[in-house]
Amino acid sequence: MQPRLDFWLEFASTYSYPAAMRIAALAKAAGVGVRWRPFLLGPIFKAQGWDNSPFNIYPAKGRYMWRDLARICETLGLPFAQPTLFPQNSILAARVALVGLAQGWGEDFCRAVYTAEFGDGRNIGEPAMVAGVLESLGQDTDAVIAQAQSDAIKAQLRAQTEEANRLGIFGAPSFVTPDGELFWGNDRMEAALAWTKK
Amino acid sequence: MQPRLDFWLEFASTYSYPAAMRIAALAKAAGVGVRWRPFLLGPIFKAQGWDNSPFNIYPAKGRYMWRDLARICETLGLPFAQPTLFPQNSILAARVALVGLAQGWGEDFCRAVYTAEFGDGRNIGEPAMVAGVLESLGQDTDAVIAQAQSDAIKAQLRAQTEEANRLGIFGAPSFVTPDGELFWGNDRMEAALAWTKK
Repeated sequence: MQPRLDFWLEFASTYSYPAAMRIAALAKAAGVGVRWRPFLLGPIFKAQGWDNSPFNIYPAKGRYMWRDLARICETLGLPFAQPTLFPQNSILAARVALVGLAQGWGEDFCRAVYTAEFGDGRNIGEPAMVAGVLESLGQDTDAVIAQAQSDAIKAQLRAQTEEANRLGIFGAPSFVTPDGELFWGNDRMEAALAWTKK
Repeated sequence: MQPRLDFWLEFASTYSYPAAMRIAALAKAAGVGVRWRPFLLGPIFKAQGWDNSPFNIYPAKGRYMWRDLARICETLGLPFAQPTLFPQNSILAARVALVGLAQGWGEDFCRAVYTAEFGDGRNIGEPAMVAGVLESLGQDTDAVIAQAQSDAIKAQLRAQTEEANRLGIFGAPSFVTPDGELFWGNDRMEAALAWTKK
């Protein structure tokens, strides 16, 4: 059995984009399995007294983040376009991802959503945008969206968000090793994989 | 002429500790000069509405940071001890550093202060602690502290802090390249050095 790292991602999170694009190859090279765990940062931020992204609340930090993300994408050869709207409503995308992850096409869906949002600057909060991504993956759009809006999936996303909070997660992307070590940020992925292996 | 990177450090900043311990060797290997620029984060945090460290204001983030710092120090082979008091008053240490950087012993002083604070868990806000570091470096303690408390040095530290703010610096450590690129965090040191070289 290869060890498994939990990858906690939020579709509104900028640094989750390069993390989602990098993790499959790095984990494979490290001999580590990855469980993708979409969750919502909104409730966690709200508990800290924020009703917006800290990158909007603190403009110097926000300006820096966009520049830093552009540089990271350039280094990785990833497309980058700053979306007009930030942060975006990520609930539908997260629910669809849960459906897809149970059916084997979830990771491709996650990468396609991030690429639309931060590679192409689109608004993934629009249901038509999510539907377009599903179509591009050859999925039965209506059936998947109906399932994503079911009570079972809604409850699963809530439970996953509560679990993230219990684990001490306060930002995305985050990584949790089998023995409970928490790593925060795209720039901690290598350390999280190394910890999982040891 | 080798290119030069500005290294902005704050003695109250946890991640400035591994940065201060790493930068000389990495910069030498990269063929990049480094200008050490102590400044104060307090006035910059105050302008963002914080009267304390965000690591104290947001406990989940604070718990994570101490664990992350312990892991980083272990990886680097650096001593680590979480100080009882955080954040510490860094004004005297910053002023003394300005004196030392003009006299050639400033970088050793910075490393010794960080090691006392985060390697040994001491309170570098105590003047006796700063004096002890100066003694260990063979300096004339009374003369240096008198100079550090002069109007000229006080004004220099204020000016440096204002410059940091103008450059968009909102945290420490930060790095600014000759063409004005800002990098934030110990984990961006390699990228900042690579940018400076190119």
